[in-house]
Amino acid sequence: MIISMNSIITFTSDFGTQGHYAGEVKGVLLSVNPEAKLVDISHQVAAHNLLEAAYIIARVYRAFEPRTVHLLVVDPGVGSSRRGLVVEADHHLFVAPDNGILSLVFAEAVVQRVISIEAEHYFRRPVSPTFHGRDIFAPVAAQLSTGSSPQSFGPEVKDYARLSLPEVNEVTPGVWEGFILHIDRFGNIITSIRPEKIRNKLGRDFKIDRFSIQDQDIDTHVDHYAAGAEGTLFSLVSSGGYYEIAALKKSAAAMLNARRGMKVMLEITT
Amino acid sequence: MIISMNSIITFTSDFGTQGHYAGEVKGVLLSVNPEAKLVDISHQVAAHNLLEAAYIIARVYRAFEPRTVHLLVVDPGVGSSRRGLVVEADHHLFVAPDNGILSLVFAEAVVQRVISIEAEHYFRRPVSPTFHGRDIFAPVAAQLSTGSSPQSFGPEVKDYARLSLPEVNEVTPGVWEGFILHIDRFGNIITSIRPEKIRNKLGRDFKIDRFSIQDQDIDTHVDHYAAGAEGTLFSLVSSGGYYEIAALKKSAAAMLNARRGMKVMLEITT
Amino acid sequence: MIISMNSIITFTSDFGTQGHYAGEVKGVLLSVNPEAKLVDISHQVAAHNLLEAAYIIARVYRAFEPRTVHLLVVDPGVGSSRRGLVVEADHHLFVAPDNGILSLVFAEAVVQRVISIEAEHYFRRPVSPTFHGRDIFAPVAAQLSTGSSPQSFGPEVKDYARLSLPEVNEVTPGVWEGFILHIDRFGNIITSIRPEKIRNKLGRDFKIDRFSIQDQDIDTHVDHYAAGAEGTLFSLVSSGGYYEIAALKKSAAAMLNARRGMKVMLEITT
Repeated sequence: MIISMNSIITFTSDFGTQGHYAGEVKGVLLSVNPEAKLVDISHQVAAHNLLEAAYIIARVYRAFEPRTVHLLVVDPGVGSSRRGLVVEADHHLFVAPDNGILSLVFAEAVVQRVISIEAEHYFRRPVSPTFHGRDIFAPVAAQLSTGSSPQSFGPEVKDYARLSLPEVNEVTPGVWEGFILHIDRFGNIITSIRPEKIRNKLGRDFKIDRFSIQDQDIDTHVDHYAAGAEGTLFSLVSSGGYYEIAALKKSAAAMLNARRGMKVMLEITT
Repeated sequence: MIISMNSIITFTSDFGTQGHYAGEVKGVLLSVNPEAKLVDISHQVAAHNLLEAAYIIARVYRAFEPRTVHLLVVDPGVGSSRRGLVVEADHHLFVAPDNGILSLVFAEAVVQRVISIEAEHYFRRPVSPTFHGRDIFAPVAAQLSTGSSPQSFGPEVKDYARLSLPEVNEVTPGVWEGFILHIDRFGNIITSIRPEKIRNKLGRDFKIDRFSIQDQDIDTHVDHYAAGAEGTLFSLVSSGGYYEIAALKKSAAAMLNARRGMKVMLEITT
Repeated sequence: MIISMNSIITFTSDFGTQGHYAGEVKGVLLSVNPEAKLVDISHQVAAHNLLEAAYIIARVYRAFEPRTVHLLVVDPGVGSSRRGLVVEADHHLFVAPDNGILSLVFAEAVVQRVISIEAEHYFRRPVSPTFHGRDIFAPVAAQLSTGSSPQSFGPEVKDYARLSLPEVNEVTPGVWEGFILHIDRFGNIITSIRPEKIRNKLGRDFKIDRFSIQDQDIDTHVDHYAAGAEGTLFSLVSSGGYYEIAALKKSAAAMLNARRGMKVMLEITT
């Protein structure tokens, strides 16, 4: 085992910032690898919201260097027979319950391998049936961050869980349907539609006519927030490469009464 | 003085995450010990809530290695004559105001020594009478994390403060009374009753008949969350070793209209 | 380029703690300087609130050692032509949009130099027009933390932005006017009035007669919170050196229905 001196572990959970669960996980991470560099991503994922966590980690991992370990604990099935996974994708390492939380990583990244965590000698003892984050996922993540190979933790598997998310599809010629993937703190609405996906499917460039959400049309497309007119809705390409509906210094989500999962329509001209 | 290269300081406070107080404390910690590894536990302890902080630190410290320094700043009496303490317990080091915030550490751990902080030459100057966290507790915690002995900071004391918390007691044969110690982000209710405490008092094993909170009975006991029926209340043993009342993917606290401090009854058969 | 082994980067933003923006910035910081020590100050600055961020950073930087890098991302004008700045003041280094967010640093500190960020070869590619925090400010801050000089990033400028904040002034003899600069988590009201400023202007000491906010008088001045009578309002000097209106274990802001920016009057006797 080689100790990597700057081993980064990112940590995303729905534990909240008021309690002790995230702190306990950090203690175990540093007990197993005192050299680990812990980076809090968010502990405010809505309780048990796998899609929210899936979106966050898909955006965040790309900003880190390959070989970074990403620990994810949103785990409504804790204690049941759902497996734990070590996933290597885009040469990053993810440790998470096998409940679909890595769905967007699986969709966007090149997956090198998916391992079912079975090597119980790495677990913290006794394993609490209500806190696998502390007793299973944290010691595995910390061990990985010391340079252990994913294969040390169990056999490769192919039947891992994915959330059943609607595909972005052309429903009639020139009309595409997606859904609201995420709403950020500013009320910006991130849709599931990526320009490059449409371009690849069409094999050519296209022009946006309008988006519609909740029967309201958004027909101005801009380059950046400050280019929009104050108080009106517009679309732009988000920092993560998805179409986004926003309003200058106002919450687009509040203006449209939008919530995660709602349908988004896009009309284009080719 | 020996500089320990991976000296961890955990930090728990009621400063919130919106302001500058926690940031100022971190600046002082790193000014005194640039090698310190800071670990945020929570800054969202309810303002001035000593019991909440007491429960959090009692759960968290055990996940860290001995010799870790734990800084606690929930300090409604700041500026008055209440003392500051350095406490060594279970070979961990705690720095906190002498206001009962360490009550559960005192109750659960083996206490090696309790020191009254009097060595003013370690303080940051001038000492603000409204911010001992920054000017007294932070420099002491950082100094401790470099390897200084607790005794460097003042004399040993025995008359330190403890919150007056109700004991778990057998009120009639087979009926035990405790209280709600903590409610977590998911609405799980952590009671003050530990199975091992009852077992030790009885000298034998026992069977749970029912818990009751707010005149509602909870008579199903399970091993982990997913084993409970959706929408119904059940009890289980929490990850910290206390009895917990929960509901699968629902908030037990909301269902029972429960708040910290409320009475919890447990009927058992021996 | 010399790698400084303990280079600290503090990070303050309005990204919130629920999403992925802060996490992405941290990933870029550690990609550029894997040795950087990241310190979260707050990501809960009210969305687009430059004055709140300005106050936080002015309080926080002083607790760190000189040469610390302070990254600030509250950036309503992202994507427009507003510049980015590297500022050296009190021998600390600040990286921020040129939108007034450093107004209180400019007012309180000795400014060594203000640099307009123009060295595009340091930027992360492609630069998203909606996320300069990740693609411009983070790589510049990380590069600075490795020891690069501020002058590496562009030319010196003099016409940088400042918020137009009302000066503290003597409106009639013995009556001074300021405003509410900040309200902390406990409901303590921090005013824009500093005793030392009045003392300097008068050239002598003075006695506080009363503060008034929202037509309510506060005529008790104490040294620390616990010296005030429970439930009544009093003034004291805050840990940052400003006059503060508080109430023992109660929210002064709620009692006075006070909000940031409101007028504060102070009557004194010389």
